[in-house]
Amino acid sequence: MTQYTHQTAPTRLLEAAGIRFAYRRFGKAGGVPLVFNQHFTGTMDHWDPLVTDGLAATREVILFNNAGISNSSGEVPTTIEEMGAHAIAFIKALGLKEVDVLGFSIGGFVAQEITLQSPELVRRLVLVGTGPRGGEGMATLTPEAQEIFGTMYDEPDHLWLRVHFTRSENSQAAGRKFLKRFRRRGENRDPEVNEKVAPAQIEAIGKWGAPRERPFEYLKSIRQPTLIVNGGNDVIIYSVNSFILQQHLPNAQLILYPDANHGSQYQYPELFVRHVAMFLSGHDPA
Amino acid sequence: MTQYTHQTAPTRLLEAAGIRFAYRRFGKAGGVPLVFNQHFTGTMDHWDPLVTDGLAATREVILFNNAGISNSSGEVPTTIEEMGAHAIAFIKALGLKEVDVLGFSIGGFVAQEITLQSPELVRRLVLVGTGPRGGEGMATLTPEAQEIFGTMYDEPDHLWLRVHFTRSENSQAAGRKFLKRFRRRGENRDPEVNEKVAPAQIEAIGKWGAPRERPFEYLKSIRQPTLIVNGGNDVIIYSVNSFILQQHLPNAQLILYPDANHGSQYQYPELFVRHVAMFLSGHDPA
Repeated sequence: MTQYTHQTAPTRLLEAAGIRFAYRRFGKAGGVPLVFNQHFTGTMDHWDPLVTDGLAATREVILFNNAGISNSSGEVPTTIEEMGAHAIAFIKALGLKEVDVLGFSIGGFVAQEITLQSPELVRRLVLVGTGPRGGEGMATLTPEAQEIFGTMYDEPDHLWLRVHFTRSENSQAAGRKFLKRFRRRGENRDPEVNEKVAPAQIEAIGKWGAPRERPFEYLKSIRQPTLIVNGGNDVIIYSVNSFILQQHLPNAQLILYPDANHGSQYQYPELFVRHVAMFLSGHDPA
Repeated sequence: MTQYTHQTAPTRLLEAAGIRFAYRRFGKAGGVPLVFNQHFTGTMDHWDPLVTDGLAATREVILFNNAGISNSSGEVPTTIEEMGAHAIAFIKALGLKEVDVLGFSIGGFVAQEITLQSPELVRRLVLVGTGPRGGEGMATLTPEAQEIFGTMYDEPDHLWLRVHFTRSENSQAAGRKFLKRFRRRGENRDPEVNEKVAPAQIEAIGKWGAPRERPFEYLKSIRQPTLIVNGGNDVIIYSVNSFILQQHLPNAQLILYPDANHGSQYQYPELFVRHVAMFLSGHDPA
């Protein structure tokens, strides 16, 4: 549809369900677009251009800020269910009948909710660095996450070196490259989120992660072909939760990358793009 | 090196360590060859031509029968260690200094042993439908495996529909296609293994799978980039063992396929070939 890229795509506004959503669209139009759902306190600018532009080479990519995030109006709700309902309202307001959905971390919870609430809207699902309702160590932030998010960093962006990457030299080197990439868009960046976002998201995460009876039963109703991707060393949402997702979703492929933490897709962006593009193009087991 | 394929490659003989090994080589010569290590009671003819020829499009493929199997002389040893030593002797007798190694099921145990005993010989490792020493449910055949291998089948090949595929319609349909493919080589097939093979292999499997202290420590010394592949529903070597391998190997990528049992690579042969070729070509996280 355009020659826009991650760097140049204008931020547009769209009204739906009483929210004014900020979003960006770019990439190869004509097929099923891929809608990205972002992690804790992140905005559209926290995506990796190598990932978004990489996938935009073969499909249209849609980034957006959900309700209450940055330049989107409204309040961040305190349940994942409401976040999912907002995302659905946004997608439908774009006039789209069918999309692929990618969700990272809390965005992966939202992606599951979108699929549960509007299964007809979702063709394929990509769940990255995320987990199921009531997964292992998901009732609260993990001890590692509490330490990492509780630390002050000289350079605020350095938080993401700890969240997304392991302590190994290789992983940290990949992290420093990622930080350069995600700052590459110089103009029309999103404002940082306000101070109400983190508490609301944490409350929603806590409800989603709380232990319950037969926690994984609900996954049986997600029939879409699903690709699950994570690092093998995720300390934010433990990697075993990706294995649990694969074991309980009826049609899910799992890929775990080595020596990688929560943001494995930023450590191996080219490989991730190849794996996701293969999956979304139907080179999947279905 | 040749225009041979899975169907037409002649069975050659090579003497090493007092064993006369039967083997076949085909595919694109000039790079690092890929050596295949076969499953319980299997011969070279039990590989899927879509997999072997698929990988032979980009590299040389070497199939062989280890000591005591079919047309290879000698006795099947009762330890995986000795099987690994035999495989190393065979590879070195071919004059090869560096190979990639693929192992399926018990062949995956042997592939690990090759790497432990001759790390300099192995560039990359592909472990399919397999597990670590002392893995979960590996001390004996699993109850499912005992039932499956203990059943008499009208058509002996139908055993593999139960071993390699799930009970779902899709998986069984894929299985019937696989059975046609692996019978496609009409001439110069390997003789079936004799009655001494299964007991010796079962004894070796039992020793490998026996519980022990800190069973997974040894995996830390396998530094090679490793790709682990399995079905998410493996009842022969439980899928969790593939997750355990990923978690303990220092540089391993895991892929689990949906609705797939022990032989997931035969259910999704094209996808498997793409994933393995990407990995072996260095599109890996290393």
